[in-house]
Amino acid sequence: MRYELYYWPSIQGRGEYVRLALEEAGADYVDVARQRGVPAMMRMMEAGSTPPFAPPFLKAGKLVIAQTANILHYLGARHGLAPKAEAGRLWVHQLQLTITDFVVEVHDTHHPLGPSLYYEDQKPEAKKRTREFWHERVPKYLDYFEELVGKSGGAWVTGRKLTYVDLSLFQIVEGLRYAFPRHMKAFEPNIPKLHELHHRISVRPKIAAYLASDRRIPFNEDGIFRHYKALDV
Amino acid sequence: MRYELYYWPSIQGRGEYVRLALEEAGADYVDVARQRGVPAMMRMMEAGSTPPFAPPFLKAGKLVIAQTANILHYLGARHGLAPKAEAGRLWVHQLQLTITDFVVEVHDTHHPLGPSLYYEDQKPEAKKRTREFWHERVPKYLDYFEELVGKSGGAWVTGRKLTYVDLSLFQIVEGLRYAFPRHMKAFEPNIPKLHELHHRISVRPKIAAYLASDRRIPFNEDGIFRHYKALDV
Repeated sequence: MRYELYYWPSIQGRGEYVRLALEEAGADYVDVARQRGVPAMMRMMEAGSTPPFAPPFLKAGKLVIAQTANILHYLGARHGLAPKAEAGRLWVHQLQLTITDFVVEVHDTHHPLGPSLYYEDQKPEAKKRTREFWHERVPKYLDYFEELVGKSGGAWVTGRKLTYVDLSLFQIVEGLRYAFPRHMKAFEPNIPKLHELHHRISVRPKIAAYLASDRRIPFNEDGIFRHYKALDV
Repeated sequence: MRYELYYWPSIQGRGEYVRLALEEAGADYVDVARQRGVPAMMRMMEAGSTPPFAPPFLKAGKLVIAQTANILHYLGARHGLAPKAEAGRLWVHQLQLTITDFVVEVHDTHHPLGPSLYYEDQKPEAKKRTREFWHERVPKYLDYFEELVGKSGGAWVTGRKLTYVDLSLFQIVEGLRYAFPRHMKAFEPNIPKLHELHHRISVRPKIAAYLASDRRIPFNEDGIFRHYKALDV
């Protein structure tokens, strides 16, 4: 089956967690809006009786599945990126939902007054929120995952088998390095296991090939992880 | 099996979506921190190799499941509050995750600069964010669910069978009425189907009994839905 991924064609954003899973799985997929344009995506959003609220969404045969963590939940067990047993599936899904929460907080560093205003209209508030983010929130979330890797008994967050959560943690480290190079340089020594995990993901053959390809959209200031000098002090 | 729900004992918060599902299901459960205190919850958070990042979490036999939508995903199929087939389960979970996103935005109306500062330290920002919330975000989310009920072919958001998503939509309407009575009074005529859905949930025997009991914690200014006069203008 050829999957159809629907997401904004010019950003990594929330779609990137799905792209990384599809690439690591070696799945056959088409990134629809990148190949056929945004109108093809908008038509899908208005069709049928179970429309997604927002991209990303994945067409898998007759199924249309939205919400990043829900898509990964679906793909995980099918492609060996999650345990097959219920307890394990619930656990990795739970971790992915915690990453989802963190991604909202990353987004809110540059959009504390909401997604409908421009960054330029909320710069002072963005500075305040970013300060809290690095003082309180990054340590809370990343120390949690660092500890999990420490006690998992393996190289990955849930043990000796890679899951889609590890791919997402790679993206979190990569994104924080891009958006906040100074903050992250100071913080990263606190999370040596996530540092290593990030490296191990980056050299996996399929991921390395993906990152070097033009399928990987570069980070930019329209996505979730944005580099604004004013916020990285 | 007697479930153990772990959540803050003094607020509805995110735990309330789980409480409503357990009540409607007539499930046997204990609200642990309300009966045995917060330390009992904190001990569970530090135990084992799969600790939750945050409450709420549910102990179901040997399983410990965190993240509200994940808990509902687990409970739904077991208690007739979600379809049993995969496509239906994914669809209601997707809707619940969209509600989860909305709940974050509700929380951010009073905490735009982040959860680690007090509301009193971010009142001007809260006013701005709340304005955007009512102009842009409430219509976007609630119109989406209003349309879904309209085309579901039944009284509920997914059709003729009640799911945990309907219970959560009841809580959203209830919470917005509490936190923003003036805003909601002006907006609610736009969502007649959700208005009716809320009423139908409120008169279901088990829900009505729950709401009248002391198991239902009153809304207050420590939860997600907070009534601040300055924000309801």
